[in-house]
Amino acid sequence: MNNYSVSQITQKKYEIPSLIDDKENIDNFLHTNEGKKVVVVQGLGFVGSVMSLVVANSFDLDFAVIGIDLPSESSYWKVCSINEGTFPILTSDVNVEKFYENSKSNKNFYATCDDYAYSVADVIVVDINLDVNKKYDDSNRLIYDVNLNSFKKAIENIANLCKQDVLILVETTVPPGTCLNVVKPIFEEVFQKRGLRLNYKIGHSYERVMPGPNYIDSIRNFYRVYSGINEESANEVEAFLKKIIYTDKYPLTRLANTTSTEMAKVLENSYRAMNISFIEEWNYFAENSNVDLSEVIHAIKMRPTHQNIMFPGLGVGGYCLTKDSLLASWAAKEFYNLEGLSMSENAVRINDYMPNHSFNNIIKTCGDLSGKKILILGVSYLGNVGDTRYSPVEILYNKLIQSFAIIQLHDPYIKYWEEVKTYVETDIESVINDNFDIIVFCTRHSIYLQDHKFNIWLNSLSNKIIFDTNLVLNTEKIHLLKNKNVVKIIGNGIN
Amino acid sequence: MNNYSVSQITQKKYEIPSLIDDKENIDNFLHTNEGKKVVVVQGLGFVGSVMSLVVANSFDLDFAVIGIDLPSESSYWKVCSINEGTFPILTSDVNVEKFYENSKSNKNFYATCDDYAYSVADVIVVDINLDVNKKYDDSNRLIYDVNLNSFKKAIENIANLCKQDVLILVETTVPPGTCLNVVKPIFEEVFQKRGLRLNYKIGHSYERVMPGPNYIDSIRNFYRVYSGINEESANEVEAFLKKIIYTDKYPLTRLANTTSTEMAKVLENSYRAMNISFIEEWNYFAENSNVDLSEVIHAIKMRPTHQNIMFPGLGVGGYCLTKDSLLASWAAKEFYNLEGLSMSENAVRINDYMPNHSFNNIIKTCGDLSGKKILILGVSYLGNVGDTRYSPVEILYNKLIQSFAIIQLHDPYIKYWEEVKTYVETDIESVINDNFDIIVFCTRHSIYLQDHKFNIWLNSLSNKIIFDTNLVLNTEKIHLLKNKNVVKIIGNGIN
Repeated sequence: MNNYSVSQITQKKYEIPSLIDDKENIDNFLHTNEGKKVVVVQGLGFVGSVMSLVVANSFDLDFAVIGIDLPSESSYWKVCSINEGTFPILTSDVNVEKFYENSKSNKNFYATCDDYAYSVADVIVVDINLDVNKKYDDSNRLIYDVNLNSFKKAIENIANLCKQDVLILVETTVPPGTCLNVVKPIFEEVFQKRGLRLNYKIGHSYERVMPGPNYIDSIRNFYRVYSGINEESANEVEAFLKKIIYTDKYPLTRLANTTSTEMAKVLENSYRAMNISFIEEWNYFAENSNVDLSEVIHAIKMRPTHQNIMFPGLGVGGYCLTKDSLLASWAAKEFYNLEGLSMSENAVRINDYMPNHSFNNIIKTCGDLSGKKILILGVSYLGNVGDTRYSPVEILYNKLIQSFAIIQLHDPYIKYWEEVKTYVETDIESVINDNFDIIVFCTRHSIYLQDHKFNIWLNSLSNKIIFDTNLVLNTEKIHLLKNKNVVKIIGNGIN
Repeated sequence: MNNYSVSQITQKKYEIPSLIDDKENIDNFLHTNEGKKVVVVQGLGFVGSVMSLVVANSFDLDFAVIGIDLPSESSYWKVCSINEGTFPILTSDVNVEKFYENSKSNKNFYATCDDYAYSVADVIVVDINLDVNKKYDDSNRLIYDVNLNSFKKAIENIANLCKQDVLILVETTVPPGTCLNVVKPIFEEVFQKRGLRLNYKIGHSYERVMPGPNYIDSIRNFYRVYSGINEESANEVEAFLKKIIYTDKYPLTRLANTTSTEMAKVLENSYRAMNISFIEEWNYFAENSNVDLSEVIHAIKMRPTHQNIMFPGLGVGGYCLTKDSLLASWAAKEFYNLEGLSMSENAVRINDYMPNHSFNNIIKTCGDLSGKKILILGVSYLGNVGDTRYSPVEILYNKLIQSFAIIQLHDPYIKYWEEVKTYVETDIESVINDNFDIIVFCTRHSIYLQDHKFNIWLNSLSNKIIFDTNLVLNTEKIHLLKNKNVVKIIGNGIN
């Protein structure tokens, strides 16, 4: 393990201290913010960091926010970066920078690795990671497991340190039933040991954050569902959320119990994952029956009852859609002794295989790839967002590398691709001066439709094969390129 | 086989003639309608009968419409009924009666069983039934097959009789690829035999008819997708549709080929079937984890990206959703040598099992049903519609009968339940004077929410068990009934 952590924004190297003691700084921060309620946001990733900004910019500015994360290689630099004045996420949402600047002038946002923060918190927003271990056997059968141990330890740690009347707001996506079957029993046991009255409040509310151009608004200006383990807990969650979310415009919905909100979250994501897997099978059917599926779906989407039908694409990425169905199915089996959710499990399996389908199509069209120069446009899993977690581009990229192709990567939002340990070109102009045999569109970044020079270059190509794996180009452009017989354009949903 | 056919509206008995010769009447009808284009609509069921009315009420009133159906026990009465002045469908849409009356004053709608009609048609609208044979083995594995023989024979019959320059508009839901792989080759062969030029036009366009309060509008005021086997065919379909549909408000969409529109139809319905099956699995999960799923879904539906998520219910019925996924999967295998659509096939299996789930819940709550008096409210598969084809209520009803329960049926739109050969009470008042142990809501007919006397009766009940299998009652009413400890209310999505 490395004892340093490198900033993905500035490439600055931070040595990780072997002993964390940030008590003095935290106390100073509290002193500066005297009279304010202390909110500790646990986790400074895509959710926690921006959630911290939203809380720090609450309507009454009456919160002092401490973001806490682990002193690990992947997280320590974020803590340092926040305190040094650089927000740790590149984003197309200008509000993020504005909110961050506000928090700097208000001096009400601080980041730390010291658990001591828990002991001073009035509210603790829990965003602990809870991952699913999954793999496929030789017959492409999905094998997976959910290990709650580190989640339990983190909760135990909080219960051991927190104030007696703390509000714990769990935002982590958990197997439905976790607050009641796991979190509450831990608090009961630890508080009894600590000799405290069982005064804690535990609530659950999930964000629907979208790290794109409306990053802040996806928290502050959007519907929220919440619940509590009892009425008092639910009331406190409601009061807290009303201070940070425009609930007049986006009313809150209280559900009957924490299992309900936990289920709502994974059900939402399973719904999307299932819709994607559904259309993936039709995509294969359409490709082989001379049907342009994107044309068909455009026609179907005119019906309001069918607006949510998905277009085919390269695959599913991100932290949620690749695992949430499995959290649900696991809970059905482990917490409630039921059968798993067959449709939802099958959806994950089909979706995980999707990038292979695009790779196979490339091979089918281009044959041997060794020595071929390939330009990959977009490595993030989502358009206009710099997020490579479980990006389907990773699978495609690895397969192309294994076929001895020479790959140039471009993504305007990714300087360094953590998962494959490679630098990515962010400047579109330096890419188009080069010469390629195959061009593969992977991510729906607007720049590929809007950049003038890029489009002149695209239209000037001859004798190229263009794969649009993700309907990045619009119908008009596809038809334009299709009609040039010097360019062959194919892809998911295009026929 | 019976040699008579009984009207489901008037119970009048019609003797089926052994020889059909209606040439004289058809010729008289044509004489009355001289100068008008002749449109033959094949099939006088839920689609064809109302499609006939829409064509007879075309904007320029320049069509003479002949509806044609088989001289069979289930269809012959419809032909007679139309010509005698009684429309063969009970519906809540007042426009149906209005359009029918118009066609009577215009004298431009006639019904017949005589194939001779095909030989005088300028346009033939094909609505031949194409069924799927399906069953389940002992391990609940789905076994199914599509037999095209009778469809082929019907097409062959038309090709043998039709004019040389006829427009064939296929509206039947077919396995994608059927117009190109089946219909066109038959026409080619028969026309060559007949020594005709291959002047026929073949198009495909599917209706999205909903036999409810907006029955007529679901054809006349709704989006349409269409295609042709060549450009001329597509142009003629377009010209025809523009005369009967408000295309200014609901623009037509032309797709590239007939396989595309065929696929669009089954994809639309598979999408709905799949969404239903998806939520059915979550329904079971929610029931067993103390979650009120309908509350959760209401919260999720607030997101525009999740508006199409379905509520749990009793099951899936009707002619389309129970089979269209299988038509698609069958075509993928038989026409294109691909694997089937696993998500779509599994959806049909899960949906077909749904009514058993409600039955099991009734047994779980009530125990032995023998001698228990049960009121079933609604036997149609769809609210405010009188359509019992593949109604999930049928499965529930049969299971309850097998358990020796005493059943009273009510449905405002069904006088006689063809599939189970039983009369149904249509008057709500005569039902509520009776006494029942268990009340089961099955169909979302508005009357169950709106009828004043019924609701007074419902609120007055004591010591009853109410099953709302299909979220027929609204949240408010459910809470009201729930809070009365003399009534136990349970059902899908309610917890």
